[in-house]
Amino acid sequence: MKIALAQLNYHIGNFEDNVSKIKTSISKARSEGADLVVFAELAVSGYPPRDFLEFDDFIRRCRLAVEEIAGVCTDIAAVVGVPTKNPEFMGKDLYNSACFLADGKVREMRHKSLLPNYDIFDEYRYFEPNKKFDIVEYKGEKIALTVCEDLWNLGNDPLYTVIPMDELMKQQPDMIINIAASPFNYNQHRIRTDILKKNARKYGLPLFYVNHVGAQTELLFDGGSQVIDAQGKVVEELAYFREDFAVYDTKELKSNNRPAPLSAYPQGNEKIGLMYDALVMGVKNYFAKLGFTKAILGLSGGIDSAVTLAIAAEALGNRNVLSVLLPSQFSSEHSVSDSLEMIKNLNSPYEIISIETAFKAFEETLKPQFKDLPFGLAEENIQARARGVILMALSNKFGYILLNTSNKSEAAVGYGTLYGDMNGGISVIGDVYKTEVFQMARYINRNGSIIPENIITKPPSAELRPNQKDSDSLPDYEILDRILFQYIENRKGPEELIEMGFDEKIVRKTLRLVNTNEYKRYQTPPMLRVSPKAFGMGRRMPIVAKYLS
Amino acid sequence: MKIALAQLNYHIGNFEDNVSKIKTSISKARSEGADLVVFAELAVSGYPPRDFLEFDDFIRRCRLAVEEIAGVCTDIAAVVGVPTKNPEFMGKDLYNSACFLADGKVREMRHKSLLPNYDIFDEYRYFEPNKKFDIVEYKGEKIALTVCEDLWNLGNDPLYTVIPMDELMKQQPDMIINIAASPFNYNQHRIRTDILKKNARKYGLPLFYVNHVGAQTELLFDGGSQVIDAQGKVVEELAYFREDFAVYDTKELKSNNRPAPLSAYPQGNEKIGLMYDALVMGVKNYFAKLGFTKAILGLSGGIDSAVTLAIAAEALGNRNVLSVLLPSQFSSEHSVSDSLEMIKNLNSPYEIISIETAFKAFEETLKPQFKDLPFGLAEENIQARARGVILMALSNKFGYILLNTSNKSEAAVGYGTLYGDMNGGISVIGDVYKTEVFQMARYINRNGSIIPENIITKPPSAELRPNQKDSDSLPDYEILDRILFQYIENRKGPEELIEMGFDEKIVRKTLRLVNTNEYKRYQTPPMLRVSPKAFGMGRRMPIVAKYLS
Repeated sequence: MKIALAQLNYHIGNFEDNVSKIKTSISKARSEGADLVVFAELAVSGYPPRDFLEFDDFIRRCRLAVEEIAGVCTDIAAVVGVPTKNPEFMGKDLYNSACFLADGKVREMRHKSLLPNYDIFDEYRYFEPNKKFDIVEYKGEKIALTVCEDLWNLGNDPLYTVIPMDELMKQQPDMIINIAASPFNYNQHRIRTDILKKNARKYGLPLFYVNHVGAQTELLFDGGSQVIDAQGKVVEELAYFREDFAVYDTKELKSNNRPAPLSAYPQGNEKIGLMYDALVMGVKNYFAKLGFTKAILGLSGGIDSAVTLAIAAEALGNRNVLSVLLPSQFSSEHSVSDSLEMIKNLNSPYEIISIETAFKAFEETLKPQFKDLPFGLAEENIQARARGVILMALSNKFGYILLNTSNKSEAAVGYGTLYGDMNGGISVIGDVYKTEVFQMARYINRNGSIIPENIITKPPSAELRPNQKDSDSLPDYEILDRILFQYIENRKGPEELIEMGFDEKIVRKTLRLVNTNEYKRYQTPPMLRVSPKAFGMGRRMPIVAKYLS
Repeated sequence: MKIALAQLNYHIGNFEDNVSKIKTSISKARSEGADLVVFAELAVSGYPPRDFLEFDDFIRRCRLAVEEIAGVCTDIAAVVGVPTKNPEFMGKDLYNSACFLADGKVREMRHKSLLPNYDIFDEYRYFEPNKKFDIVEYKGEKIALTVCEDLWNLGNDPLYTVIPMDELMKQQPDMIINIAASPFNYNQHRIRTDILKKNARKYGLPLFYVNHVGAQTELLFDGGSQVIDAQGKVVEELAYFREDFAVYDTKELKSNNRPAPLSAYPQGNEKIGLMYDALVMGVKNYFAKLGFTKAILGLSGGIDSAVTLAIAAEALGNRNVLSVLLPSQFSSEHSVSDSLEMIKNLNSPYEIISIETAFKAFEETLKPQFKDLPFGLAEENIQARARGVILMALSNKFGYILLNTSNKSEAAVGYGTLYGDMNGGISVIGDVYKTEVFQMARYINRNGSIIPENIITKPPSAELRPNQKDSDSLPDYEILDRILFQYIENRKGPEELIEMGFDEKIVRKTLRLVNTNEYKRYQTPPMLRVSPKAFGMGRRMPIVAKYLS
């Protein structure tokens, strides 16, 4: 039997486009002689559809879309992921299903058994877990048809009591097909490949794995669909961060000798390289799926906005990103000259708009209230907010989307101005720690200078008062980021951190800053997720609380 | 046996205060001769602790807090709710537990079986459901000790296959104790009382029910703890929206003849009255738990900011709410005069700060880019954002928290300026539809004029361009709110709405506005939740999607 893997970029709720893409791939598979073409988990609706799943109308459209796709599956079969109604009274209303389409109709349905409900996942909010196990027979082959997480319990995951493949093995399948929506983080591809290989080996079966690719707001799906032989060897790995397609004969699984997609990343730079490519895809898809083409950002002369600009320029094209330099009386000479050098490197458009007039207008306006009180945080924030007003005015007037340029370290400790530099439609590097931003700048410059050296080497500063440096108010980023990583990614508490050798005063201050700034993060744009624990939907914290604060 | 019900207002993660409150109530119960005192679900940690539950350090502090409370339970017993470690390898790491404290130690633990995972609830993200059922014996009485949702399946809830009380009845208990964290919405008290009465009647047992009271950011817990006799009659209902305490002898459950708390609400105004009191509590607790006393808001002369001011003044004291009038060249005469009349009624502080200087400064600053393009949305938003900058500057300078004054209808259709009038630490009426805001204004004036009549009767306008009216861009609020209610609260799709008789064009426009403005709601402050379906944690939607948009 010949199986086609169709790794596509879906758009949540966009049934017309999703169905059209799926039908195009079915034609392609047919023309390449495939018997069966496999699409990803919830391909028809896009993943994750979240509370759209609570609308009967949405589920009805899913059903109509599947029926339309089934209509073209006459001389070929297809597997598509789609939410379906649970026909029983008992249990949740829906299943997360793999529909097997053949002979012009939905011939079989298999439902997901293991429903992730941690980090960014909320599947138990919507879906009833499957408890009946049956293989699908097609053209004399027995297929163990599974959905994503169903392969993730090899018997050692305490979250689940069922091992779906153990159940399906009772019917002696010839192969495993798994349809997935497994989002990227810089560790995920290794963990995923490892799990898939272990499944193939444990059951002695070839495995055909089809993942989503593309961004759904902050969630980035990296693709990397795979064919693994019965010995657990990866025969094929589809592209990362773009659509791809391959056809394999189940009787002779041999490598096509294409280089593995990850071999494209330079030695020692795999992590940063993957993060960079993920972010580029994130920006590109965010704009394309919203129907926008042009971005705007404030270019400060610092490293965060420089890296953001480089990513956006690669994603949207250099001429589609407008950099705005917004100097004030506190801006250093080099903030403008360094920015202009970068813009010259990219040949991208820019504006220079001083905020001095606006700042003075607010000073004058607030004089009766502020009187002669000393310059302080309020005045610093006015500058950041005046910049915000100008950027949003240009955005509104000319149809740009504003890119947020904050990094993860700043977002963690609240080092930013709400309604000022924390504005934006999407946060590009909000899941990238400051120390990683430096590494990414070097990576961006790997083939020649895009980001001027001075932007990388000068000490970080918000330039909101004379001679301000980040290090005036924050611990050294090398230390800060290690503490933040242990607290955010690894959920270490203060005692554990102190035991690891971090200074107690710095630890307590850092955790207090993280927890007291939850209110700011609540109002920030979605942040493209590249780590195993990003701010946003995967990290849900109370705002009005008093823990480590 | 004498049982005390302690209905307290906890603070998430504030172990010191929570333990201190609990110990004070234990002393009080002891002095009133109680044998047992009952506290709410997750009383020790506050509810909901959300992802703090993933920190070992947080769980350790919960354990230490319970041990400290147990230490004072020598001559009296207590039931407290707390997250506890699941000692088994299999299953999630935690239980949502009711600890029975006696003889100075944790004598028994009973765990929650039915874990809500819908709307604002995420309990299956953290907790393993209990599957073993055992009563607790104390002083010769057999107690069926249950946690909140455990009583909500009377055999007709498809979400659950277990009926915990059916299991516990096998051991012939003498009474039911239920500890709860059941958040308010304007329907919830009736549904809750009905469920509790049905349980008492079904099992023929008296029921002691202790709920949380107080606000946890946007979640409002209304209290209303109850004692119900074995015939299903409510013997006692504790206060709504404040702490309360009562002691009952299980052998003679008779009413104390206090008037039922809900009888305090005027005929026909129960819903609006409850919403109003819930919002007052929400504002009060938000400030108190953050350690702030003073609020600031922009008073526009419209009904939304007027109602917000009235609520905040009742919550914080008239003198603690600073109203700022921010007129522009487009402001009507009455926008200032109506506002001043209301301020006079409340004798609360105010400032008048024109935004004209700031607006002109931005016009001048942007002249090279905007050239002679006609006045439009960008210019309207500059005004709203200039107001935002001024309010935040005062907030930063003098330690006010900014109150957001948007209503639910505006939030739904995106009729507001991000980083402008959508700013604030907390949204006071973001879960109140515009038509309900009008009702609430009348309710606020029930004992004399607080909100001037002209504010209630004039046509709503944002006053961002000459002669602007809300009705220029939005359907009539009477129609809009009915469509929104059916779409948001009842999840009706476009075909269902059209079938209900709504105009197709208005329906499609409204749903499109709701869905294309998800990006704005993502960045708005938490909204005090008073309806069964509020924006925020209980309604999770994709941003980059294309469904009904």
